Amino acid sequence: MKIYQEIIEIKTSGKCLHNITPKIKQVVIDSEITTGLCTVFLLHTSASLIIQENADPDVLADLTNFFSKLVPENNNDYLHSAEGVDDMPSHIRSVLTSTSENIIIRQGKLLLGTWQGLYLWEHRMRSHIRQVAIHIQGNKN
Amino acid sequence: MKIYQEIIEIKTSGKCLHNITPKIKQVVIDSEITTGLCTVFLLHTSASLIIQENADPDVLADLTNFFSKLVPENNNDYLHSAEGVDDMPSHIRSVLTSTSENIIIRQGKLLLGTWQGLYLWEHRMRSHIRQVAIHIQGNKN
Amino acid sequence: MKIYQEIIEIKTSGKCLHNITPKIKQVVIDSEITTGLCTVFLLHTSASLIIQENADPDVLADLTNFFSKLVPENNNDYLHSAEGVDDMPSHIRSVLTSTSENIIIRQGKLLLGTWQGLYLWEHRMRSHIRQVAIHIQGNKN
Repeated sequence: MKIYQEIIEIKTSGKCLHNITPKIKQVVIDSEITTGLCTVFLLHTSASLIIQENADPDVLADLTNFFSKLVPENNNDYLHSAEGVDDMPSHIRSVLTSTSENIIIRQGKLLLGTWQGLYLWEHRMRSHIRQVAIHIQGNKN
Repeated sequence: MKIYQEIIEIKTSGKCLHNITPKIKQVVIDSEITTGLCTVFLLHTSASLIIQENADPDVLADLTNFFSKLVPENNNDYLHSAEGVDDMPSHIRSVLTSTSENIIIRQGKLLLGTWQGLYLWEHRMRSHIRQVAIHIQGNKN
Repeated sequence: MKIYQEIIEIKTSGKCLHNITPKIKQVVIDSEITTGLCTVFLLHTSASLIIQENADPDVLADLTNFFSKLVPENNNDYLHSAEGVDDMPSHIRSVLTSTSENIIIRQGKLLLGTWQGLYLWEHRMRSHIRQVAIHIQGNKN
C-alpha cells in the first residue's frame, strides 16, 4: 500500500468551470498507483468542485445560469459584503456543491463514466490562483 | 491492508429514489474487509447518490417534490435541451446532490445511523441501467 | 498502513453551525497518523457537515439566512410533518449539503486552507446529541 500526495495550482480567469480531469490524470500517472482511491480537495471556500458532463458546453452554461439565479449577487440581505458583491454568493455556491471529490483508480486509470469530467468551479469574478490537493492511496501492480 | 473493487448495475424505473443499502452491504460482506472505508461512486451525470432517512416514505416524496420545484423541467431557459426536457434538470439535481458517498466499515458492517440509508436517485423519466462502482479499502480481522 | 476509528459526540444547542475542526484535529493527533486521509461522517439525516470560512461570523449568518429562505419551514406541502415543522426542511438541507467530508492529512496535520473550517450544521430547533464517526487511514512517520 502506497500514499502519494501533491498540491497543484490552477489559475482561474474569473467565473468559469475549468475541466481539471487531464491534470488529475497526470498526477495519477505520476503516483504509479494502479488500484486505489484518488481524493481531490480544494483549499478554498469561494470556489468548488463538481463532476459533470464533459461533452456539451451548453450544460456548463445552463449550470452557471441556474446558480446565478438561485444564489443572486444583487442581494442586499448579505451581511458579509466587504469583499465584494460576488463573495458571499461564492461561499453559498461552494456549500451547495463540493469541496472534495473521490474518484476510484482501477487498472491504472481514473474510473469515470464516459460523460464525466471533474471541474473546478471559480465563483469569484476576478482571476485567482487556486490550490488543489490530491491524495492517492492504493497499490502498485 | 486490502483493496476490493466491484461494479454493480442498478436498473431504475424512471424517476425514483432506490435504496441500494442492501446491495452495498452484500459487497462489504463479499470483500471480507471488517475495518475500513467503502466508497460508492456513480458513473453518471443525470442521476446521483444521497444518504437519507430510510423509515418514512413521505420523506422521499417531499424530497422529490422539493427538487421538482427548485429545478423545474418546464424552463425554456435551458440551452441543453436536445436530450429531452428532463435532461438538463437532471444534471443540475445531480450537482446539488452527490456523485459519490463514503461510508465507514466498523466491526464488519457499514457504520450508518439508525435512520440512514444510501439511495440512488434516478432523475431521468425513462428507466436506465446505472453503473455503481464500489471501492473498499481496509483490514480483515 | 494504519487505521484509526473513533466516534465522538457533539451536543448542539438548536439550529447552529458548530466549528468542530479543533475536535477533529485532536482525533488526528490521537491517531498518530501523519500522512493519510481523515473521513468525518455524521450519523444523522437532519443535521449535516460543511467546510466553510472560519473567520467572519457574518458568513455563517448569511448561510443560515439563505437556507431558511431556500428551504422554508412554513410550507404546507410537506407530507412528513409529524416530527415538527423543522424536521422535513432539516432533511432537505442535509441533502443539499454533506453527510461526510474527507480531509487530507499531511505532515501530521489536517490539510485545510487558511480560511477553511469544518462545521456541524444542526438543522433542528431543539438541542441534540449528534454522533460523528471519524475514520483515519494512513502512515505513521
